[in-house]
Amino acid sequence: LESIQARIRFILETDRLKSVYRQTYITDVSRQENSAEHSWHLALMAILFRDAANVPDLDLLKVVKMLLIHDIVEIDAGDTFAYDEQGHLDKAERENAAAQRIFGLLPEGQREEMIALWREFEARETPEARYAAALDRFHPMLLNLHSQGTAWRKHGITKRQVLNRNRVIADGSEALWEAAQQIVAEAAAKGYLPE
Amino acid sequence: LESIQARIRFILETDRLKSVYRQTYITDVSRQENSAEHSWHLALMAILFRDAANVPDLDLLKVVKMLLIHDIVEIDAGDTFAYDEQGHLDKAERENAAAQRIFGLLPEGQREEMIALWREFEARETPEARYAAALDRFHPMLLNLHSQGTAWRKHGITKRQVLNRNRVIADGSEALWEAAQQIVAEAAAKGYLPE
Repeated sequence: LESIQARIRFILETDRLKSVYRQTYITDVSRQENSAEHSWHLALMAILFRDAANVPDLDLLKVVKMLLIHDIVEIDAGDTFAYDEQGHLDKAERENAAAQRIFGLLPEGQREEMIALWREFEARETPEARYAAALDRFHPMLLNLHSQGTAWRKHGITKRQVLNRNRVIADGSEALWEAAQQIVAEAAAKGYLPE
Repeated sequence: LESIQARIRFILETDRLKSVYRQTYITDVSRQENSAEHSWHLALMAILFRDAANVPDLDLLKVVKMLLIHDIVEIDAGDTFAYDEQGHLDKAERENAAAQRIFGLLPEGQREEMIALWREFEARETPEARYAAALDRFHPMLLNLHSQGTAWRKHGITKRQVLNRNRVIADGSEALWEAAQQIVAEAAAKGYLPE
C-alpha cells in the first residue's frame, strides 16, 4: 500500500491534538482536558446516546467519524473558548486554513472525505451533524458541573450565557437538551453559575 | 429517556481513563500518553487504514466501538506494560472484574453489548478484533520511533522483544506488519532498540 506512509504522517501530525488544551477541566479537577481525549469521550457518547438523537435512523459511523476529526483543525487554529466572542470573529478563516494543511497530508480520496465530514459537522444541517454538535455542547456542560464549575467560574460565565449558547443541543437531541437544562439548574444551585 | 442518567454516570466514570498513563510518550516527548487519547488515535487510525486490513469487508463501526472501549478496564486494573511478564499473569482476572464493575453502570442492553465487544476484542478471533488488535500494537511502535525510543530505552527493550510481541499485527493486517517491521529497522538503526 503505497499511500500508507502518507497516512502515517497524518497520524503523527494529529498526535499534536493531545497538546491542545480546552477550558474545561477533567472531573478530578487536576488539569484541563485536551482535545484528543475530548474527541474520544464524544465518540463514546455518540454510540451510547444514539437513541437520544431526534432522528433515530442516522448514520452512526458518520457521526463517530465527524467527532473523531472535528477538533483536528485546532492543532493550527487553537481551541476557541465557547464564550470568547472576539476569538470567534476569525475562527472560520483560521480553521479553514488548518483543515487544508492538515487533512492535506492524506491521500486525495481520504483528504476529500475528511474535509467534507468536517464541513458537514461545522454546517450543522444534517441529522448526523446536529446530533454530533449536541454532544459537543453537552459534554463540557457535564464536565463543568462535575469539576466544581471551575471553567465557568474562572471566566465569570452566567447561567443565561450557558443556556443561550447551548440551546442548539435541542436541534440534535431534545432528550439531551432536557438533561442539559437539569445540569444548568444544578450548577446554579451549587453557585457555579450566577444569574 | 429514563436511562439517560445511568449513561451519564458511565460517561463520568470513564472520564478517569484520561488519568491512566501508558508507557508510551507522545511525539513531543513532553509526557506519557494517556489511555483516553490513545483510544481516540486508534479509532481514527481504524477509519483511515481500513483498506490495510486483511479482511476488506469488515464491520468498521464495530472496530471503532471496540477501540473506543478496549482500555476502559484500565480505570480499575491499570495499564499493564506490553513487556511486563509479571503484570500479565493476573491481567485477565483484574480486567474481568473491572469490566463487570464499569460496564455494569450502563443500562442492561448496553452493558451486555459493551462487555461482548470487549471480550471479542480480547479474544482476537474475529476479523474486526484482529484488525483492532493490529492497530493497538502498531500505534505504540509508531509513537516510540517518533519519541526517540524513550519508552523502549527506559525499559531496556530489545529488537527481538518488539518483533516477537507484535508479530500478531500480521493476523489483522499484513500491510501494517510490513510497516511495523520498517519501524523496527529504523528504530534499531537509530540505536533505540539493541539486538
